[in-house]
Parts: sequence; C-alpha cells; structure tokens
Amino acid sequence: MDIMKLSLEKHREWKGKIEVVSRVPVRTKGDLSLAYTPGVAQACLEIAKDEDLSYELTRRANLVAVITDGTAVLGLGDIGPSAAMPVMEGKCALFKEFADVDAFPICVASKDVDEIVRTVALISKSFGGINLEDISAPRCFEVERRLKEVCDVPIFHDDQHGTAIVVAAALLNAMKVTGRAMGSARIVVNGAGAAGIAITKLLLQIGFGTVVMCDRMGILCKGEEWMNPAQQEMAAVTNPDKLRGTLKDAMKGADVFIGVSAPNIVTAEMVSTMAEKSIVFPMANPTPEIMPDEAKKGGACVVGTGRSDFPNQINNVLAFPGIFKGVLRVRARDINDEMKAAAAYAIAGVVGEEELSGEYLLPNAFDPKIADAVADAVAGQAIRSGLARA
Amino acid sequence: MDIMKLSLEKHREWKGKIEVVSRVPVRTKGDLSLAYTPGVAQACLEIAKDEDLSYELTRRANLVAVITDGTAVLGLGDIGPSAAMPVMEGKCALFKEFADVDAFPICVASKDVDEIVRTVALISKSFGGINLEDISAPRCFEVERRLKEVCDVPIFHDDQHGTAIVVAAALLNAMKVTGRAMGSARIVVNGAGAAGIAITKLLLQIGFGTVVMCDRMGILCKGEEWMNPAQQEMAAVTNPDKLRGTLKDAMKGADVFIGVSAPNIVTAEMVSTMAEKSIVFPMANPTPEIMPDEAKKGGACVVGTGRSDFPNQINNVLAFPGIFKGVLRVRARDINDEMKAAAAYAIAGVVGEEELSGEYLLPNAFDPKIADAVADAVAGQAIRSGLARA
Repeated sequence: MDIMKLSLEKHREWKGKIEVVSRVPVRTKGDLSLAYTPGVAQACLEIAKDEDLSYELTRRANLVAVITDGTAVLGLGDIGPSAAMPVMEGKCALFKEFADVDAFPICVASKDVDEIVRTVALISKSFGGINLEDISAPRCFEVERRLKEVCDVPIFHDDQHGTAIVVAAALLNAMKVTGRAMGSARIVVNGAGAAGIAITKLLLQIGFGTVVMCDRMGILCKGEEWMNPAQQEMAAVTNPDKLRGTLKDAMKGADVFIGVSAPNIVTAEMVSTMAEKSIVFPMANPTPEIMPDEAKKGGACVVGTGRSDFPNQINNVLAFPGIFKGVLRVRARDINDEMKAAAAYAIAGVVGEEELSGEYLLPNAFDPKIADAVADAVAGQAIRSGLARA
Repeated sequence: MDIMKLSLEKHREWKGKIEVVSRVPVRTKGDLSLAYTPGVAQACLEIAKDEDLSYELTRRANLVAVITDGTAVLGLGDIGPSAAMPVMEGKCALFKEFADVDAFPICVASKDVDEIVRTVALISKSFGGINLEDISAPRCFEVERRLKEVCDVPIFHDDQHGTAIVVAAALLNAMKVTGRAMGSARIVVNGAGAAGIAITKLLLQIGFGTVVMCDRMGILCKGEEWMNPAQQEMAAVTNPDKLRGTLKDAMKGADVFIGVSAPNIVTAEMVSTMAEKSIVFPMANPTPEIMPDEAKKGGACVVGTGRSDFPNQINNVLAFPGIFKGVLRVRARDINDEMKAAAAYAIAGVVGEEELSGEYLLPNAFDPKIADAVADAVAGQAIRSGLARA
C-alpha cells in the first residue's frame, strides 16, 4: 500500500493524533476540592495578584499553540482551516515526542490579517508561546510582525524561521565538508517568498558572504520594478554586485544554491556553471528543483533536499521542538535573530567531526540529543539577549 | 493545613493540571511519514473535500474547548483571563476523568461581546463543542445566543445550563421524596441572574408548576420598573398570580426555595412560612442563603446546597461531562432544552428508588454510571430532536 493510503487508514484508526489528559487524580471528594473548588480559588487569587504566576500554577509554562489559517498547507496550498488540522495535530505530536513540549493545534477561520492577529492575541495568555504554521505570504510577515508587537509570549512562524535555521545548520556543516570560509561564500537563494527571505536574512545574520535572491521574474536587484515590498527590502541587503538576469545567470560561479521554489527548474548544466565543490540544496517538496543524482552529475559536491528518502534531509523537526523547549525554559518574551543563529549552530554541532560528510550534514532527526542541545543554546542566548524572564 | 493552602501547594507541584500527549508513535522515519509529511497530506485533502471528515481524521470528535473571559470566576468575580485558568484547567481535568472527553482551556482577554463572539467563532472549527465558563451576566446570554447562531458546534454555558440541569435533577427526586406532583409545585427562585434564569426556564420546560423569581429589588413581576431586559422576559413567563413584594412574601406557602444569590439572606422563620415538607436548595457559594441545620429548624424536609460537606451537593460535575460525551457521540449541532431535560432525568434516574431519601437526592459524583447515563439520554434526545449529525 502506498504511504498516502496507509496514512489515511492510520488517521481513521488513530482518531486524532493528540489527546488532552489530566495530570491530577480526581477520584475522591478530597481530590476534587484540591484540583477544583473550593481549593483552586487560591491559585486563581495568586495569579490575579501576579500574572506571571500563571507560568507556575497552570500548564502555560510548557504549552505552545500551533496556529494556522490553512492558507499554505504543505504543498497543498489554501485548503482551509479544518483541512489543515491533520498537519497541525501532527506537529503537536512531534513537539511532545521530540521535546516533551505540550502543543495544541488551533485553526483560525479567517484570512484577514487584522482578524487573525486579534484572535491570536486575545487567546495568547493561555500559552507560553505561539508557533504560526502554514500561513501564506505575504500575510505571514505582517501577522508575525504585529503579533510580536502585541503579545508578551514568543511568536515563531516555523515555515520561515524553522526552515531558515535548519538550512543554516546544514550550510554551516557543508562549509566544513567543502573546506570553505563562511564569509566569502556566494549563495543563490531561489524563491523569494516567506522561506527564501527568512533563509537569506538568517544566513546574512550569521555572517555568510553574499546572497543573491531570485524569484520567477529573475534576480532581485534594486531598481527592478516587479518586486513586492518584501522583495524590495531584500534587494537592498543582497546582491551587492547588482547582478541582473535569470536564475541561470545568478548561479554562474556561485558556491551554494538553495531552492525553495518549484520542481525541476534547475538542470545539471546550470549546476556545472557553479564553483568547484558546489553545495546544492533543492528543497521544493515533494519534487526538488533538481534531483540529487542530476545535481551530482552537474558537479555538486554536497546535496540536501526536503525529502526523507535522500541523504541530508533539511527537516524543520530538527529545530522547532528544541527552540520552544528553550524559550519555555527561560520564559523568553521573544525569539530574536541571535537565538535563531544559536539554534543553527547547535544543530550543526550535534554532528561530530568524525561523522560529518557530504552525505551526513545534519543529525538524525531521532537523535535524542538534538532537542536538548537546541534548547540549551536558545535558552542561553535568550538570557544573553536580555529576553529571558525566568 | 487548610484546603486553600494545600491546593496552592499542589498547584505548584502539579505544574498544570492537564497535558497534551501524542496518540501516535514517532520513533522512525516511517512513523514520521505516516503521522506527518508526506502521508498526512491525504487526510488534509479528504477534509478539504468534505469538512465533516475532520471529525474522523482529527481529534475534533472528542474535543471540547473550555472558554472564559475571566469575568465571573467562582465566587471571585472579575479576576481576568489568566487568573481564571486554574479553574478552566480543573474543569478540563474533570471532563477527561469523568467522561473521557478531551477538553482544552482557553482564556479570551476581552470583555467585549463582539470580540469574544468573533474570537470563539473563528477558532470553533478546531473543536467538537464549546463549553463557556464563568462569563458574567448579562454578557453571557448574548455571547451564548450569538455563538449558537454562528457556530456549527454545540455551545453550552455551564454556569447557566449545567447548574439548571443538576437543580432540576435534584428537584425531580425531591418531588418523589416529599410525595409531590411536579405540575402543582410552587417554586421560588431567588437570584435572577444567569443561573436563576436558566434554572427557571428549565424547570418550566420540564413541566414544574409555577415559578416566582426574586432578585435584590424583590419579586419579578410584569410592570416592575427596576427589571433588566432578561428579567422582564422572565416576568412574562413566571409569577402568574402577579405577586409583588419581597422574597419573604414570595416564600409564603411555597413548596420549593432555590437560591442562587447571596449568603445568609434566608431565615428559619422564612422557611417556616413555606408549605409542609418544604424543599430548600440554598446554593450560594461558599456560604448558602441559609445553613442546612437552620433550614431544617424552619421545617424544611429536604435541603441541598452547593457544598460538598453537606448532603445533596448540587454539583455541575454530575452534568457537563456526560452532556458533552453525548453530544460528541452523535455530533449534535446544538444542545436544546429537551436535551437538557433528558440530562436532568438521567441524573435523577441514577439514584435507585431504594437509595433515594431526603439526604440522598443525587448520585455520588464518582459513580461511574453517571456520565454514560447522561450521555445516552442526551445523545438519544439529540437524535429525536433532529440535531444529530452522526
């Protein structure tokens, strides 16, 4: 049976991939009077006096909301809030299994930025953090930016930053494998949407050399008239040589290709114009920009994709469980760029020098060390950034 | 140690009274490809084609939201959304322990009816039902009414209807104990707020004789000018003899007193003016309108309160777990008056004729039969009412 059919059958069997259980015994009147009335009133009164105690007296301290509007679900697009829920539940199951973080899925039945922001803000006090998921660009930028302004819990759009962090981790290790210096690397990012922009920003933040971004219309360059506001912003901080033209032009001589765009748009010939020992991360899902064997034919030294059936899967699950575990540990009020960079270094660092190779850039997702390594790094950086509240 | 202190200590120990766990294994790449990408896409696509499949392919079918704005929490009043969370979590723990219903607490940080309604409506597709909790009157009426209009899942304000159902159950059995006919009973309900109004409506729906409602200003009677709109509505369907005056006047000759008002406002003397073998349910919490021993001195035959340290505790936990278990079982789109009445009869029926007495009107809350008896009755009535969708 193919995996899609089998998964559907399993979903029918599972009747939900998460479950809300009680952590307290409720078997006697005495139990009831402690967990519920009248005893519970005391916990309420303490929080009424000092709202921060909600982190000590309720589940909030370990609880993340996974929130979507269902507009950009996997490669399926705008399938609506209810149809997005199997993904959100799956994500919540991963939060728990990989990092012992409680996560609860909520779909918001609106595509209006104001409404989404207001809804999430109004329920945010139930949670210790908000993971935004599968919200389409460019709305996702504004939703995240405005929520960061109005909420006092960390907001993290995983499709942007989770992806960026794991790409950065893979690239850090690919630099070692190919013997490159980070600062002089020339990187092409194809796909100037939410993920591509977040990847570019994080790579520059970390200190990678230059990035040239491309989209369907070509290279992002100051003065091009087809760019949307987010792309104009990126054009100002990328492409210092003012390259113009197509993806093909951008790739000539580049050290790194990162694709978050569309299937089969890169050829072996295009890869062959890149620098020696090129690094190629074609991450379009499920079909990459170029298949790994083709990329190798073009001379790529290291290839990573979004798929689990090839080496070097660039998989967000390496990042989000540990990131939230870390921010929850120190009750961080935000997740800043330095914390994202710390997470990328932590993931890269889980692969020991002796195991590191062109076929093994990233740790095995099931390595139990990852979430703690990421959490430690993120929590530490939150403290150094002055964002920790506990 | 007193119960309040001990409860607070326990709350610190518990670190939350609920927990979100995974129902699926995520230990191998194969697991991941079924519970998450790429397999999960198939469940998404099925729901995109037929939204009702969200009940089969996600946890929605067993999931209730417990939602508050924190404005009328226990006897504590308007303590705010975060401070209300210990109660909401406790309620969710009870849902799970008493009826195996998953429940998740959400506090909405707004007191504006429009905003609360819009927020709850927008997230309602994540759930199979909505339990509203501790929202102050008169806002709670409008919040519930409007949510019933816009949501396709059942909406239930427990402070109104849960209380009404358990009072009705107790009263049904008190009728038997005191040898009364339901249709000729004269009932006084003191406290014309959310609970008092819901109780009155349900008792009349079930077929109890006449109800006279009182509030701080006296008896609700057509023509009285101090009544708010909800009270005016009630004046039109209660007090057929157009009694005017105070609670004291209302109680003369009455068979039943039901108090959802304030401590110590009823005297033994007032009870002594009631009919023989009177039924007195002073439910103000934590201090009743009259203490049970005083009511007995006044000649009360049967007394029930909200407290667990006296016989006949009128406790919502007898109702809400089974009600939601029932509506979820048949995917009811609403909870109508007939379903509430069915729940009341089911709770009353759990007490066998041989155990029934003036000291034992209601079943022990920990009797495992209750939730199923209530669920069966509610589900059956939902089907007969044409409200079942599965």
